[in-house]
Amino acid sequence: MRSFNGHSGLARRTFLGGLATGGVGMAVAQAAPPQPLAARLPDAMTRPGGADLPYGLPAAQEAQVERTLSTAAGFPVWRTPLQHQRGIITPSGLHFAVHHNGVPDIAPERHTLKVHGLVHKPLRFDLERLLRYPMVSRVHFLECAGNSAANALSPTALDQTLGEIAGEVSCSEWTGVPLAYLLNEAGVKDSAQWVVAEGADGGSHSRSLPLKALLEHGMVALYQNGERLRPSQGYPMRLFMPGWEGNVNVKWLHRLEVTDAPAYTKDESGLYTQVLADGRIERFAFHMEVKSVITHPSGQQRLPEPHGFCEIAGLAWSGRGRIARVDVSLDGGRTWAAAQLHGPVLDRAFTRFTLPWQWNGRKADLMSRATDEHGRTQPLRSEWKRRYAMHSFNHYNAVQAWRVQADGRVENVYA
Amino acid sequence: MRSFNGHSGLARRTFLGGLATGGVGMAVAQAAPPQPLAARLPDAMTRPGGADLPYGLPAAQEAQVERTLSTAAGFPVWRTPLQHQRGIITPSGLHFAVHHNGVPDIAPERHTLKVHGLVHKPLRFDLERLLRYPMVSRVHFLECAGNSAANALSPTALDQTLGEIAGEVSCSEWTGVPLAYLLNEAGVKDSAQWVVAEGADGGSHSRSLPLKALLEHGMVALYQNGERLRPSQGYPMRLFMPGWEGNVNVKWLHRLEVTDAPAYTKDESGLYTQVLADGRIERFAFHMEVKSVITHPSGQQRLPEPHGFCEIAGLAWSGRGRIARVDVSLDGGRTWAAAQLHGPVLDRAFTRFTLPWQWNGRKADLMSRATDEHGRTQPLRSEWKRRYAMHSFNHYNAVQAWRVQADGRVENVYA
Repeated sequence: MRSFNGHSGLARRTFLGGLATGGVGMAVAQAAPPQPLAARLPDAMTRPGGADLPYGLPAAQEAQVERTLSTAAGFPVWRTPLQHQRGIITPSGLHFAVHHNGVPDIAPERHTLKVHGLVHKPLRFDLERLLRYPMVSRVHFLECAGNSAANALSPTALDQTLGEIAGEVSCSEWTGVPLAYLLNEAGVKDSAQWVVAEGADGGSHSRSLPLKALLEHGMVALYQNGERLRPSQGYPMRLFMPGWEGNVNVKWLHRLEVTDAPAYTKDESGLYTQVLADGRIERFAFHMEVKSVITHPSGQQRLPEPHGFCEIAGLAWSGRGRIARVDVSLDGGRTWAAAQLHGPVLDRAFTRFTLPWQWNGRKADLMSRATDEHGRTQPLRSEWKRRYAMHSFNHYNAVQAWRVQADGRVENVYA
Repeated sequence: MRSFNGHSGLARRTFLGGLATGGVGMAVAQAAPPQPLAARLPDAMTRPGGADLPYGLPAAQEAQVERTLSTAAGFPVWRTPLQHQRGIITPSGLHFAVHHNGVPDIAPERHTLKVHGLVHKPLRFDLERLLRYPMVSRVHFLECAGNSAANALSPTALDQTLGEIAGEVSCSEWTGVPLAYLLNEAGVKDSAQWVVAEGADGGSHSRSLPLKALLEHGMVALYQNGERLRPSQGYPMRLFMPGWEGNVNVKWLHRLEVTDAPAYTKDESGLYTQVLADGRIERFAFHMEVKSVITHPSGQQRLPEPHGFCEIAGLAWSGRGRIARVDVSLDGGRTWAAAQLHGPVLDRAFTRFTLPWQWNGRKADLMSRATDEHGRTQPLRSEWKRRYAMHSFNHYNAVQAWRVQADGRVENVYA
């Protein structure tokens, strides 16, 4: 791995030394010197302010920051505008959502969760009872198996925003009841190996999951970011399996059937099965693999000026554990430098990374490559494509590249 | 400190052993056995679901979960319903807010931040330029100096919800530009000691803050929980000083004047100065001290049945650092047991604690007492009252007690 010295980017050590003494500010100010100090009071100071609301909303001036809707898949896919997110928590209003059968309107007082099948004592939990169980809270990302599908399928890189390309991933604080409590109370029989989870939506979305993993990591999530789940996220309850592909986190959960084999439901035999390059079928590939994206600068943004300072910032995550490092390249993968990880670095959660950059006004291909604590690292697109059949698109985790053009415009490119 | 053995609560070790083998579930199910398994499909499964929104909203069925408004202080105080919060992140829509002069409507493209006074180079930052600086993200609580004022002032404990009593505290992920970058770029003069921060609201709310602390911990916050600040929280920018009383985190920040002495603004000489019991004045007491509240069960809630399992859950925080331990009493402070802290335990952030409890159906006085990493611990109400003059109410951090009556109703009491 080569250093940045003599390279289009600013040497990392030099830059970071500059931060402590005000160097970073200088870099910005040099390019656009401050305006003169005006004496006039801001308008807002000349009149009383307005009223507030019992449940607050975003600024009207930020109304353009919303999820984008695509129906190209045959069902609505709402994507998080990750290019507008800072920090690791996605606002609940901007959490991605994929609905195969719409958003059901469920009366919470009538909703129940049934635990049955290979158990000694079938149980049914209403919400009131479930809320009395001990709960745990965890910050975890959630990613659709089909996130970044266009990058996998399209022969040429589409000129889209980051959210449009890879916005089927978000990160929240999830709170709920560990599944082990409920399954142990029902008493699973010795022959039990799998659990079929079913949602109370019009299409009864359902997935088969290995019992052992559910006992270890599964929760019935009741809260997201401090408040009860929203309808779009499974109100009043959903299954949550940290790090696993989105669709197994069954929303509007109403039934857990303990079985000795997978049910091969329509959902797992159809949409969420991959075909490998050699023609074999990959079923039950639950984990979302290590991945990262540079959120800023990213697709369709424009750097305001050449020779200006720009903080490269991004998000990394892995369905198998913590992020260990993120490397960033400014020259299309020829050289790499370690980005700074911002804490807390949590298990199966978004992790922020940044790298200071002094853009010299010339074309630059930016890439990020994350590695998790198990040493797994992102493939290049060409490597990923070699593994899967031409038409496969799930679990795409290849390195994302952005080209900064000489005029400052940023575009999606294949590295 | 005595153990729970032979006490009205379940022995901690016995209970936690039970968790692993399904004991906790049993405790709940014994009290209310499961309903028979019904065969009928839930209504929602018999029809297609509805549409989603570009910016998602909470479930209509949860509309009662909102901030409560009090104008008893002469200005609006919106309190977080902490009794409904799980996890450590407060939804932005439920973040507490105190407005002395209403919520100004600010056009972001015209808003600027001026840094002037004892600096070598006065600067003015517009939003576009500020957004180009390196940013940091931190999860921190924010608490109004006057939180829990009624508990400090009222001679008898008011029968209110937790949110009404102590809801002027919330916790978010804040993202912004470290103040050190801006102040260093302006170049503070040797004589500089203080900074006066002013908001662009109709009353020009302003506070004097020590320069040294601002350089170490201060940020100009631009984002809260992943999205731009909301108007109620200072859109487009606010000062943020982790762990310091709410009002110094000046909202709608438009001016930082570097000075050699405090300005003794109306805001710091009036509302936010305390009178001690001996008549002395306590100015510039910035830190919010270590504090905790049991969120469940809490004021005006009702335990559904005697001899039932109840998870005692709460929040603890300290303006000086991390929470080191929380002790819980079930007998009005006679005996205490260490609660479990749930990670991540972050610096100057909400920390979750829980303790399993088997309620025996008799009157019980529940209390929590937090201790931070510096060994500071919460006083009893009587101890707190001895320190301050009769009419003082800011910085109230005494132990909160809840009485569970024999009928299961929970009430605020003074311990």
